[in-house]
Amino acid sequence: MKKLTYNELITIRKTIEEFKISEKHDIILILDNIRSSYNVGSLFRTCDSANVKKIILSGYTPHPPKDEIHKTALGAVETVDWEYVEDIKSVLVKLKNAGYKIAAVEITDNYVSYDNLKLEHFPLVLIMGNEISGIEDDIIELCDFSIEIPMYGVKHSLNVSIAAGIVIYESVQKYRQYFINNK
Amino acid sequence: MKKLTYNELITIRKTIEEFKISEKHDIILILDNIRSSYNVGSLFRTCDSANVKKIILSGYTPHPPKDEIHKTALGAVETVDWEYVEDIKSVLVKLKNAGYKIAAVEITDNYVSYDNLKLEHFPLVLIMGNEISGIEDDIIELCDFSIEIPMYGVKHSLNVSIAAGIVIYESVQKYRQYFINNK
Repeated sequence: MKKLTYNELITIRKTIEEFKISEKHDIILILDNIRSSYNVGSLFRTCDSANVKKIILSGYTPHPPKDEIHKTALGAVETVDWEYVEDIKSVLVKLKNAGYKIAAVEITDNYVSYDNLKLEHFPLVLIMGNEISGIEDDIIELCDFSIEIPMYGVKHSLNVSIAAGIVIYESVQKYRQYFINNK
Repeated sequence: MKKLTYNELITIRKTIEEFKISEKHDIILILDNIRSSYNVGSLFRTCDSANVKKIILSGYTPHPPKDEIHKTALGAVETVDWEYVEDIKSVLVKLKNAGYKIAAVEITDNYVSYDNLKLEHFPLVLIMGNEISGIEDDIIELCDFSIEIPMYGVKHSLNVSIAAGIVIYESVQKYRQYFINNK
């Protein structure tokens, strides 16, 4: 067994031009009132790898251009579609009317385990909230359901960029299973 | 739908005492030559949530006590079993002899997709290597296989703590499917 070299890797990855016109997974990530620029940058990098449709930054979530975001995004700010909106609520209503299911990644009394997403949960909007306080109650009210990652330990939550990474990848794999591999 | 409150959450989580004697998922995480203390701390927090058996830190990976680790571990240094060893190679041989399958989370020519782990891949050791250069070649030689997260974008890798989070949670869910839920 041997590691692939950089030269072998670049032959199997998309160029920026190929990526821009490639078919996206129909999943939108919303980052509402996230505090840390490093988390935002790191999530740009995850969304490039997962090839999700778009990132929407809202509230006081920091947005590009910002050095700390670029530091952890490693170029993904240029590849992933994104926009900033001040208040996410009217956007959520529009997305809902366009057929999206709105999921809060949060612990609520109406949750689906992250590894139990079904065909009817797509196309999917994933909302991540503040690192400490989570998603605001008036946003929770606009959500169709919440997605929970089971916690088997003492702590109540994961780092926000890790929780998002786990849910995004699982959503993408399910999306591919339902809409791409079964075509 | 409403968020669970802190008082509701603490009734459904384990206490430190309950956690210490709870049955662990038989998965060991090795962090070899990781540079960032923040990544190490964040992975302690993930390993608490995932209830994995142990973290082994090796090479120049920073280890507790260290302020930056405690900052992102949020207490998980006290709940997750861990040890530091200078050279991981003899430990890998011992784990192999004890029946563990050794997996490099790395892009190689002999990989299993992270969501395709089978019964025969357990009990499992997951190795994460340096943020830039990945796992050293002499460690790769001791591995049974590698685990790959599919990259659908332009970039070649994820942040190390996000990649680890995705692979750890998928491993835990498969472990539970094979060894706990089917008991």
